[in-house]
Amino acid sequence: MGGSFAKAFAAAGVEVFAWNRTRSTLELAMIETVTGELDETTIPTCELIVLAGYPASTIEWLERYAALVSPGAIVIDTVGVKRVICERCEALCEPYPFTFVGCHPMAGTQYSGFARARANMFKGAPMVVVPPEMDDLERATVLERLKGLLEPCQFGSFTLATAEEHDRNIAFTSQLAHVVSNAYVKSPTARDHRGFSAGSYKDLTRVARLNAPMWTELFLDNADFLGEELDTVIESLSAYRDALAARDAERLEALLAEGDRIKREIEGR
Amino acid sequence: MGGSFAKAFAAAGVEVFAWNRTRSTLELAMIETVTGELDETTIPTCELIVLAGYPASTIEWLERYAALVSPGAIVIDTVGVKRVICERCEALCEPYPFTFVGCHPMAGTQYSGFARARANMFKGAPMVVVPPEMDDLERATVLERLKGLLEPCQFGSFTLATAEEHDRNIAFTSQLAHVVSNAYVKSPTARDHRGFSAGSYKDLTRVARLNAPMWTELFLDNADFLGEELDTVIESLSAYRDALAARDAERLEALLAEGDRIKREIEGR
Repeated sequence: MGGSFAKAFAAAGVEVFAWNRTRSTLELAMIETVTGELDETTIPTCELIVLAGYPASTIEWLERYAALVSPGAIVIDTVGVKRVICERCEALCEPYPFTFVGCHPMAGTQYSGFARARANMFKGAPMVVVPPEMDDLERATVLERLKGLLEPCQFGSFTLATAEEHDRNIAFTSQLAHVVSNAYVKSPTARDHRGFSAGSYKDLTRVARLNAPMWTELFLDNADFLGEELDTVIESLSAYRDALAARDAERLEALLAEGDRIKREIEGR
Repeated sequence: MGGSFAKAFAAAGVEVFAWNRTRSTLELAMIETVTGELDETTIPTCELIVLAGYPASTIEWLERYAALVSPGAIVIDTVGVKRVICERCEALCEPYPFTFVGCHPMAGTQYSGFARARANMFKGAPMVVVPPEMDDLERATVLERLKGLLEPCQFGSFTLATAEEHDRNIAFTSQLAHVVSNAYVKSPTARDHRGFSAGSYKDLTRVARLNAPMWTELFLDNADFLGEELDTVIESLSAYRDALAARDAERLEALLAEGDRIKREIEGR
């Protein structure tokens, strides 16, 4: 995610300073993409800082470097949960003259690493923005500036949300999708289906491949909402299973027709 | 499915006779794509007959018209279950001098209808073929002829399977995918997630939109294998739910890492 931001800004001719916990990745980025290292010297020169790490490391970065961030700068994160992040990061920034704005780009692939990062990763994608408590005028000003700074990323839309709205929705649209996909491949049949895999299998299992430590952290930070979604999908699946076990054609067709109708309604909005 | 076959053959200059239970669809096809109607007069002139209907209507067609099929012709179906179809259709054809070969193209989209049919629908897709009991030489001859006749469809590969192998695999790669996708959108959050939908949600729910009567028939004809897959996925999902409810990071990460490893293994084969 950080690599794609770096590539998008660099491609637009914006000067980028970067840091990565893996030194060789940072060195590769410095040859290919970025101007230099993000450190005590360069942090105060940045107008926008993108913290593209795990939840805990995002908070740690701010604990360590908040005092060095330039007055008026905007710091965003890209973490997939917002309640823990925004609460903690907004509190950390309180004493300083810069603004923290929780962000979550609705983009990415099942791959990770700088080599898979792309300058056009965010092109057309929605960006969810969770601004801190502030008056309407101040918020509008910050958001206009943030949009301007993010222009090289070519986001398709900006969605404002509270941290709670974000976390409830993301539990459904992203976290649940990863759990279901990851669970799907655990069937004993999974290893034995060569020549039988149509598009539906490929789509269902695309995100089965995932970064387990990162998603564990994200899931635990959103355990209440994700837990509800998991209960719901297990309950829904059990209804089909029961109808099938009872060979109840009418019930099974009603369940399928209901899902079809909901999906059409969502698409039609 | 039938429309895509008609368009593929017509695009290759092959003469096509067609039938559809909806007269207006047939009339549209006769203007755009096909030479004429498949009826008592034209059935005996066909070298290949593709029965692209529901399970019950496929069997009914053969009951009614088997006596008219030309000696040496090949009749295939495209039904998504093979045990019921092959057993019944092979028995129906027994007295006649043509060959029935159960088929299932691993292709299609979430849309149906002649307008959505495409001449290149099968290009590169696997075709699963379930040949009847016959000696090896006879089978090889029939398959070579079938491959030749299907050339305009440009299938990417032909996979031979028994009806049971087909049904077990298809329960996992296709039927389960449709149930899970259809169940996924039943969350109350589904109607309220605009601006939050990343690729993972879109992929997971693509086939939520489905033909409920057709899939009901297919699921009931494969209730044993699909029931097992549903039990397995519900059990797998429950393991994540329990680890999450217990805030058991180690267990949750192990479950996710296991799915990731299986998916990589499958991809790497």
